Amino acid sequence: MNQVYAHVGQAFTPTPYDVVVLGAGRMGTLAAHFLMLRWPDLRLLLLDQGGLPNEEGATILAPGIWSGLGVPGEKRGQADFTRRLITGELSGAEGGLGLSGPNDAPTLPRGLVELLPEAAAGSVAVSTLGNLPPGLFDPVLLPYARLHPDALTFSPASLTTRAAQSAVRAGADLMLNVEARPTPTGVELRRLSVTNTHRIVVHETHQLEASQVIVAAGAGGPALAENTLGTVTHHARAYRQGPRLNLPTSDATPIIRAAGLTLRPHAGGFTVIPPIHHRDPHGYLPTGGRLSGVPVGLRRETLEDVLSALDALPALGTEALELGRSVSDVPGTWLALPEGGWPCYQLLSERHWLLLGGERADAVGAGVARELAAQVVQSGR
Amino acid sequence: MNQVYAHVGQAFTPTPYDVVVLGAGRMGTLAAHFLMLRWPDLRLLLLDQGGLPNEEGATILAPGIWSGLGVPGEKRGQADFTRRLITGELSGAEGGLGLSGPNDAPTLPRGLVELLPEAAAGSVAVSTLGNLPPGLFDPVLLPYARLHPDALTFSPASLTTRAAQSAVRAGADLMLNVEARPTPTGVELRRLSVTNTHRIVVHETHQLEASQVIVAAGAGGPALAENTLGTVTHHARAYRQGPRLNLPTSDATPIIRAAGLTLRPHAGGFTVIPPIHHRDPHGYLPTGGRLSGVPVGLRRETLEDVLSALDALPALGTEALELGRSVSDVPGTWLALPEGGWPCYQLLSERHWLLLGGERADAVGAGVARELAAQVVQSGR
Repeated sequence: MNQVYAHVGQAFTPTPYDVVVLGAGRMGTLAAHFLMLRWPDLRLLLLDQGGLPNEEGATILAPGIWSGLGVPGEKRGQADFTRRLITGELSGAEGGLGLSGPNDAPTLPRGLVELLPEAAAGSVAVSTLGNLPPGLFDPVLLPYARLHPDALTFSPASLTTRAAQSAVRAGADLMLNVEARPTPTGVELRRLSVTNTHRIVVHETHQLEASQVIVAAGAGGPALAENTLGTVTHHARAYRQGPRLNLPTSDATPIIRAAGLTLRPHAGGFTVIPPIHHRDPHGYLPTGGRLSGVPVGLRRETLEDVLSALDALPALGTEALELGRSVSDVPGTWLALPEGGWPCYQLLSERHWLLLGGERADAVGAGVARELAAQVVQSGR
Repeated sequence: MNQVYAHVGQAFTPTPYDVVVLGAGRMGTLAAHFLMLRWPDLRLLLLDQGGLPNEEGATILAPGIWSGLGVPGEKRGQADFTRRLITGELSGAEGGLGLSGPNDAPTLPRGLVELLPEAAAGSVAVSTLGNLPPGLFDPVLLPYARLHPDALTFSPASLTTRAAQSAVRAGADLMLNVEARPTPTGVELRRLSVTNTHRIVVHETHQLEASQVIVAAGAGGPALAENTLGTVTHHARAYRQGPRLNLPTSDATPIIRAAGLTLRPHAGGFTVIPPIHHRDPHGYLPTGGRLSGVPVGLRRETLEDVLSALDALPALGTEALELGRSVSDVPGTWLALPEGGWPCYQLLSERHWLLLGGERADAVGAGVARELAAQVVQSGR
């Protein structure tokens, strides 16, 4: 109990677990946290192929925007719960993780401003707003704005770390740098280490028994579950890049939505968050696009989104936008696309659950992880 | 005039042309045919990278289904014209190509049957229909049917060949096995030949002047135009495979639409035509899918469409469906996705036109090619 296995030098003796959570991203760590809260005597193992959170996953590149925009009535409860977790309003008994600490990126009540070409219900003249960077948008094309003061920015990576720490404090074990795949009776672990020549090798393999397994492996989860359990899922995935737009921002700059794009103030500039139009096909390898024949690092489909927004947001046509020379120059990650578009969980066998976050995990993810925890406890008892 | 340059042994002396049509697929050949009809003294060159029609293009794998289903009012004229061209009802003066000849795959008035889970306007009980292969569908899940008697099947490849022959008879030149790209003053030609060691090499390069250039290069057209002209287009493309379903069919078997799929009677069986849900991303290389971890030749997204249809169409779950072991085992081709979804043309510069067919070229393509011909004649005069 409370063991953290970060590297293979730490001996591990496999014993049966009640629950194994496969993936220490935002969804998996929150599920582990809520499980330990509800069932303090649970033997739980949380594991990840990389660190906490994994540097290649969606957690570390998630926009970190909580907003109630577009949340339908039946998901309001999940959204409100998620917001209260993020702001630190939830008590410990409710599953709260407290306020962000001195080492965390802060949670900021920035609000969200939608810039609109036409007046709409609740809109105001854009000229009445402060805090919008000059030169970002064309006020002739976007003369109206709608304010969403409850929106805030936060760090999904910090929240994930705090949730994992909470689970471990409550008695969970945590193993990092381990590949895992579901088996009929639990999971198979392959602990990874790095050789002198920087090759990643499997140090040891364990068969672990587990009463319940939660596959929370992000965009790779559906394929992992399918390949090892023989089920078929209809969830998909998409590769999203968030190029940086170097216009000055401050802690008071709001999140901005305009012309189909979301601009998230981040580290003195903006991260441009493009819409997800549809899944990427099986076998797609992210590729930089071409613009009139010139290669850039941003994928072509997102380039077209940027081009469509150019009149309304002329700053995108300047050197302030970092397009990169290859796809690795523009931060990007695979995002799960759960069927239906919202974070969800699904029972795949008598013991295996699939947990998916995706694009809207920022808005309702904690609420969904908490619901899954209640389900797993019921099934396991 | 009337010259056919099939291989590099036939000497070609570049002279200025009034119109060069870049691509001898279904859209390009029809445009050439209508141009020569309207302007018999036109110096026109029709060219293609491969044969007639190109074996790698969308023409040769097009479903060859004319149907008025889903054609909106403003496109009815184009659709009716296209149907009359296909059936041979159009007079020569109107642009008709006559009846299909003894070497062509025949045009057959099969009609189309939509199988429906619920009664709808104009539907009948499916039990009243003959000519549906036993075992194909579940009549409990699809008890209703709607008939579209005006639908027919034809061979886009035959129609394309006849249109090219008509253009050449009327005075056009035709060059095959030639790479071409638009230039500011016309096109650059690179005539291809094959060495003793089966390598394809460029035999000779020509700069050709042309008053008007029609880029009708199918799914590759937008990128070709963009890379050489420096414009940006928002058209896209998708890779579609049509697996074969080996259930017996006859010339009287109707086209069948059910559970999102179209089944086209073809050579004693069916070709399964999946829906196009969205574009494939730039850089995507078609890849066979996996089903519960087992590799097959059909792409994953289409596999999922087939799986969704399995209850309604149980024949898809039998060995009658050929899934292949690799992507090359299942006939497939890149399809242009014109913005807006319908065949269209667009002026890209003072002399370059982009002509796109795509999924609905079977239904309205000839009507659109004829309209472009009228536009080009106007611009050229």
